Amino acid sequence: MISATSRCLDCIFNQAYRITRNVGMDEEESWRFLIETMDVLSRTRRGDTPIHITRRVYDVLERFGYSDPFREIKRHSIELARELLSDIEKDFDMDDGLFEALKISAAGNALDFGLKDASIDILRDRFLQVMRKTLYAPDYEEFLRMLDGDEVLFIGDNAGESVLDTLVLRELIKQGIRVYYAVRHVPVINDVIYEDAVESGVDEYAEIVDSGSEYPGLVLEETSREFQELFRRCSVVISKGQGNLEGLYGVSDKVFFLLTAKCPHIAKLLKVSEFSPVFVRNRLLSNTES
Amino acid sequence: MISATSRCLDCIFNQAYRITRNVGMDEEESWRFLIETMDVLSRTRRGDTPIHITRRVYDVLERFGYSDPFREIKRHSIELARELLSDIEKDFDMDDGLFEALKISAAGNALDFGLKDASIDILRDRFLQVMRKTLYAPDYEEFLRMLDGDEVLFIGDNAGESVLDTLVLRELIKQGIRVYYAVRHVPVINDVIYEDAVESGVDEYAEIVDSGSEYPGLVLEETSREFQELFRRCSVVISKGQGNLEGLYGVSDKVFFLLTAKCPHIAKLLKVSEFSPVFVRNRLLSNTES
Repeated sequence: MISATSRCLDCIFNQAYRITRNVGMDEEESWRFLIETMDVLSRTRRGDTPIHITRRVYDVLERFGYSDPFREIKRHSIELARELLSDIEKDFDMDDGLFEALKISAAGNALDFGLKDASIDILRDRFLQVMRKTLYAPDYEEFLRMLDGDEVLFIGDNAGESVLDTLVLRELIKQGIRVYYAVRHVPVINDVIYEDAVESGVDEYAEIVDSGSEYPGLVLEETSREFQELFRRCSVVISKGQGNLEGLYGVSDKVFFLLTAKCPHIAKLLKVSEFSPVFVRNRLLSNTES
Repeated sequence: MISATSRCLDCIFNQAYRITRNVGMDEEESWRFLIETMDVLSRTRRGDTPIHITRRVYDVLERFGYSDPFREIKRHSIELARELLSDIEKDFDMDDGLFEALKISAAGNALDFGLKDASIDILRDRFLQVMRKTLYAPDYEEFLRMLDGDEVLFIGDNAGESVLDTLVLRELIKQGIRVYYAVRHVPVINDVIYEDAVESGVDEYAEIVDSGSEYPGLVLEETSREFQELFRRCSVVISKGQGNLEGLYGVSDKVFFLLTAKCPHIAKLLKVSEFSPVFVRNRLLSNTES
């Protein structure tokens, strides 16, 4: 797992502020929500993950009566991703379909309405900008060797990019691999839940499984027993996005992280520049590093 | 006075985060500072001014041993303003020197290293961008009538723009007016203190007076008795910048606000677009509005 930095505190509080605008709180409610969020954040301990800290902000939000504040935004993201998918499919390189699909799915991770100044146009531009880069995939050959006609678990991140994840699922089942696509148990930020995955067309290619997680990133201990059993059984796990990386970093070396590095902290950790598409194998960490 | 909005909470906390970078705190110290700042901010009450809230962040900073974190930055600001002044003086319109000087001083308010993404180049560009706009000065004729060959108090804001304020002081003394230039009692953010005013050349034109204030904005009750007496005596007060406006808004109608509107909250209040240069007379407010 990855601990939050001081920069994360600023980023998470700014997210909380932007949520007050997204859900249309009036000034009086925004004020009360942010003061309560400050109070909660002031009790953060060093070593806490961004996932756990963000979850606490959502707990405050739920106490304020907002259980699915990104519902509408997720609909728009899925629409945008569908539009991009239909453009992309024309030029799809069938020769190395799996690699191409991984690249597109990684770039899809940039379609994140949780980011600063996010709008349909900015996200579309950012996606195309990431698409022009080369996928950093030093462990791709190793990944192919590990696939071995087996079962693969794909852990989804945001609703929207989930539409583009279907390309990876499609390429995997072409190889006779059975794929599971894990979603969050409840709405948290813009993360993909069961209904979003269905709306994204994931069920055409994979069995959608509920991870049991209520966190905006996969922390194994917080998932259901059934999910943990599935995780154990699959020979390869594709973990999508930053939140899942924060939870799984250093935990299991059958995990491959697929994402766009969207913050300087994660970019530095992966030794890439910001907004690079990345596909790397997880390494086991000693406790001092995790 | 102007109360803080929920947006101010986000802005002030982001300032606190940027201060950790400006003063070169390491990660461990940054974390402790931000957690303590969150704790302090979580006890903010509705109705508190941005000035008071920001002061509390500086109290935390002082407890961490940083009493003048913007010292170096203030030196750079003064240098930058001197460079801009020497460019400007060539084209200075002597026909309406006072109006021109007010415009330049207002635009100088954009030279604020406290702003997001501030760098020498960005601030220079922003200054020139504001200079291309028209000074919004609906009360200028009234101001001229009120001047009446008397004493004027000019309340300084940031070190740097203080160099450009000297143009206003020069134009006033040409009219035989005696001018006082008020500075903060102690360093707070990048606000002008006695030594900064001297370095800016203010003492050539005006008597520099210590307001007694330790706040990043002028709140009359927090100033010295001598300053309050001076404030009472002068027939016109020019209040520079947002912080002083936040403290003096609605308080006395002999005050004229001279500034660049640097945040949406203040721009909306003054009914101008962001980054407009403004010179407007204060209006007395009923308690419910203040």
